[in-house]
Amino acid sequence: MARVSRPIRSDICWSTPERIVVHGHDLPEELLGRIDFGQMAFLELTGRLPAAGESIVFNALLVALVEHGLSPSALVARMTYAGAPESVQAAVAAGLCGLGSVFVGSMDDAARMLRDALPAGRARDASDQRIEQIAAEVAADFHARRALVPGIGHPFHKPVDPRAPRLFALAAQHGLSGPYVKLVQRIAAACERLGGRTLPVNATGAIGAICCELDLPQTIIRGLGVMARAVGLIGHILEESRQPVGIELWRRAEDEAAEPHRAAARPPPPTA
Amino acid sequence: MARVSRPIRSDICWSTPERIVVHGHDLPEELLGRIDFGQMAFLELTGRLPAAGESIVFNALLVALVEHGLSPSALVARMTYAGAPESVQAAVAAGLCGLGSVFVGSMDDAARMLRDALPAGRARDASDQRIEQIAAEVAADFHARRALVPGIGHPFHKPVDPRAPRLFALAAQHGLSGPYVKLVQRIAAACERLGGRTLPVNATGAIGAICCELDLPQTIIRGLGVMARAVGLIGHILEESRQPVGIELWRRAEDEAAEPHRAAARPPPPTA
Amino acid sequence: MARVSRPIRSDICWSTPERIVVHGHDLPEELLGRIDFGQMAFLELTGRLPAAGESIVFNALLVALVEHGLSPSALVARMTYAGAPESVQAAVAAGLCGLGSVFVGSMDDAARMLRDALPAGRARDASDQRIEQIAAEVAADFHARRALVPGIGHPFHKPVDPRAPRLFALAAQHGLSGPYVKLVQRIAAACERLGGRTLPVNATGAIGAICCELDLPQTIIRGLGVMARAVGLIGHILEESRQPVGIELWRRAEDEAAEPHRAAARPPPPTA
Amino acid sequence: MARVSRPIRSDICWSTPERIVVHGHDLPEELLGRIDFGQMAFLELTGRLPAAGESIVFNALLVALVEHGLSPSALVARMTYAGAPESVQAAVAAGLCGLGSVFVGSMDDAARMLRDALPAGRARDASDQRIEQIAAEVAADFHARRALVPGIGHPFHKPVDPRAPRLFALAAQHGLSGPYVKLVQRIAAACERLGGRTLPVNATGAIGAICCELDLPQTIIRGLGVMARAVGLIGHILEESRQPVGIELWRRAEDEAAEPHRAAARPPPPTA
Repeated sequence: MARVSRPIRSDICWSTPERIVVHGHDLPEELLGRIDFGQMAFLELTGRLPAAGESIVFNALLVALVEHGLSPSALVARMTYAGAPESVQAAVAAGLCGLGSVFVGSMDDAARMLRDALPAGRARDASDQRIEQIAAEVAADFHARRALVPGIGHPFHKPVDPRAPRLFALAAQHGLSGPYVKLVQRIAAACERLGGRTLPVNATGAIGAICCELDLPQTIIRGLGVMARAVGLIGHILEESRQPVGIELWRRAEDEAAEPHRAAARPPPPTA
Repeated sequence: MARVSRPIRSDICWSTPERIVVHGHDLPEELLGRIDFGQMAFLELTGRLPAAGESIVFNALLVALVEHGLSPSALVARMTYAGAPESVQAAVAAGLCGLGSVFVGSMDDAARMLRDALPAGRARDASDQRIEQIAAEVAADFHARRALVPGIGHPFHKPVDPRAPRLFALAAQHGLSGPYVKLVQRIAAACERLGGRTLPVNATGAIGAICCELDLPQTIIRGLGVMARAVGLIGHILEESRQPVGIELWRRAEDEAAEPHRAAARPPPPTA
Repeated sequence: MARVSRPIRSDICWSTPERIVVHGHDLPEELLGRIDFGQMAFLELTGRLPAAGESIVFNALLVALVEHGLSPSALVARMTYAGAPESVQAAVAAGLCGLGSVFVGSMDDAARMLRDALPAGRARDASDQRIEQIAAEVAADFHARRALVPGIGHPFHKPVDPRAPRLFALAAQHGLSGPYVKLVQRIAAACERLGGRTLPVNATGAIGAICCELDLPQTIIRGLGVMARAVGLIGHILEESRQPVGIELWRRAEDEAAEPHRAAARPPPPTA
Repeated sequence: MARVSRPIRSDICWSTPERIVVHGHDLPEELLGRIDFGQMAFLELTGRLPAAGESIVFNALLVALVEHGLSPSALVARMTYAGAPESVQAAVAAGLCGLGSVFVGSMDDAARMLRDALPAGRARDASDQRIEQIAAEVAADFHARRALVPGIGHPFHKPVDPRAPRLFALAAQHGLSGPYVKLVQRIAAACERLGGRTLPVNATGAIGAICCELDLPQTIIRGLGVMARAVGLIGHILEESRQPVGIELWRRAEDEAAEPHRAAARPPPPTA
């Protein structure tokens, strides 16, 4: 019994010898020089160009995600570059591989938590009172399970992650502060009451909530972090090429790990 | 003999509990909502914010590099996502790994060819006549070696890669069409005379030349393609989640490759 | 408040200028020429050298996992190599990235299902009757949830995945066929009764069960597939360098996907 | 003009519902339980099963390459696992990405140097005198260019990399010590004379030479390191899951890099 073949289709981009069309827009004529890199990313993820306010807010989300200093992913990219400087692309790839459940995944988790609690179809009509109630339920549920609430609190930026209020202000200024922003803020407040300590929304919580406001697909919310970090990793690879740290870190780690074993293997000093 | 430890330094980004600073700019206050994603990428690569014209042209380079349809890197990302949908970051990483010497590397090669022929220190003072002469030498050298000239000609976009003239027009409009743009165009013209056929500058040639005009470091010119493609791959992963092609391609390939072996292993039909 | 530094430790391998020691064994003297590659893998995963029977069975698990023809991961490695032939390591890396929940992850899932149902501490003393009962409960649970049972059935190898009975026979021959092998076989039988169709244990189910018999850590069961496939991918990259398929697959996919768009963009034929 | 389609072919492995065949061998019947993991790797790379001596020596090459302690690739895999513990395969992939020109590539380079100096077709008939002469020329050429000779000398294992003499002894014992082993040893001796210091063949030099004796294809010599390291990385990921170092290394690096910037940003202490 032969397998039935299914067609190969893609509607993102097609070209002829004379033309290149992306989501219905002629790339050279309608996009180059007319939209910025963030707007192009929005087009890729939604199939349409962003309105003016969406463009500013979406660009801000990406800008917020580019740089995190000597993060694990930056160190990974730098060490990989140190071993394979001919493959800048592989150094970036290696750095991206760790953007999983522990780090960038909290954006996903925050957005999923918000959408699970307040499905998109009912979000526009949700009253403040209803949102407050949902927030209390979400916070109580995490509290009862002693689980970390995604997007709330920060181990280093205390008392406040300075990116979050700025992103919220931008969203409000451009008409993108709706039920999901409200919900994440109320969840944080409810967590603070339950936990008895300051637990404001962090950058990933703010980004997750604004992604919900922008109605971005859940599948690729983590993708915002991935694309932004690809930009940042190129910056770190460039610095590594001029001011290397990868080899030094390796040597320190290796020496420290080997020392107890080397010490145990050394002949004892001669006794008098 | 103990190893001498070297300090770990990085000057891209640092933070305190209250602040996050990127290349000297306060991230929340000075960058979020004030610059776009392309400007942030420029800041990462050069340590400074771009001027207005630089911003438009640099964004255009990135926008031009985002999307290439069902390219090998898009297919790789899609097939990887089909096997590990929980790891969007790994699907992007896999897709980036192939942006090497054959595809995106031609941007590097074009920029390197231009800078080798006309070092940055002498570029501003080079007369038209001198540039014409250098172009003739470069073209003759590649012709004698029967080597492909990076950034010239295109196997599909004929007679002209429509991105190249548009990028050149934007560079000219914003004061970024200098000696390297001239040089790559003259090299193409010289190649056409030697080859007896139409061989205009393609997108990677235009981008390579404009990267030289922007004085971007050679190490990370390929990085522009890598960061832009990371954006495009997220778009393809999203489409794959809705309209999959990865599994179908695999099955077709496997069936076609196995068929001769299966046929040879079948018992012959009974003869009458 | 300064962070308290934790020590960096690793006990796998250490060296001095004269010596290299892996899990307590002198690499040149005690391992090179004395153990095979599979035994070395066993040493890496368990910290000890395998007994003779363990060695044969563990090597067989790895050999079974090396090759899967033009699988998605092989196609990914081949397409990546086509774009970056200078980076064989990155082509392998790309191919491994897709060994996630859908493909190789079923080994993990099978082993986890078996250990969840029959914890290691109680496995040795479990009677046949108890194992039969557990199997019935597991099968009923999956059936009620209409979930796929990991390690059972195969979409292509019907009625029987020929690797499974051979691996079971080897395990039995070398004293490694215990409660987990029994359990996975009984689960398959229970599933067949519930489903009313032939659903034997497949290769990943057999491997998952034998990994439990070998008491391999759950964290890296998937790792057996990853290391074995790394070997297979090198084979595919070599064949790709001699008999390429990556570019052909790309062109077919791109042409098929673009055709409807190109057709719609063509001017209609002139009417008479 | 339509593109001419080329067939998709692969001769490594094919299957029917009942059978799986790898390089002409029935996988369950002829390979499982009969060959070890290293022999399977040899089959993948050469299309044939190794003779007894080849098997021992080839396995030894792989065993020698598995483990390097807290190497950059191990640290990369560990840091990646710390961020994405759900994706063991991506942690391995990240660790492999850096096995490029600087580290594992020296195996390639050594083999290429040997084959360039003594092509395979002429190797069997080369007299000792001829090999001595070639060695002197190779060493003089590298010396004149002040280039590092691949496979010679070691920054840490002094005076001798203990793996090299053991691998040479195994090759000799099994009839695989021919012209390439002789050549690399003579090159080392010539380098010592020119350099006036001890410069013995290191592990990558020995492996490169023995790969030439085994007539392994140049394309995938680096692949031996890649597949062996995939095994080692699984070991490190397992240890990382129990005894983590990735996060600690990150925090130390970040703190050290940020400190000068934080210090400069602190308000000066009040003067009396």
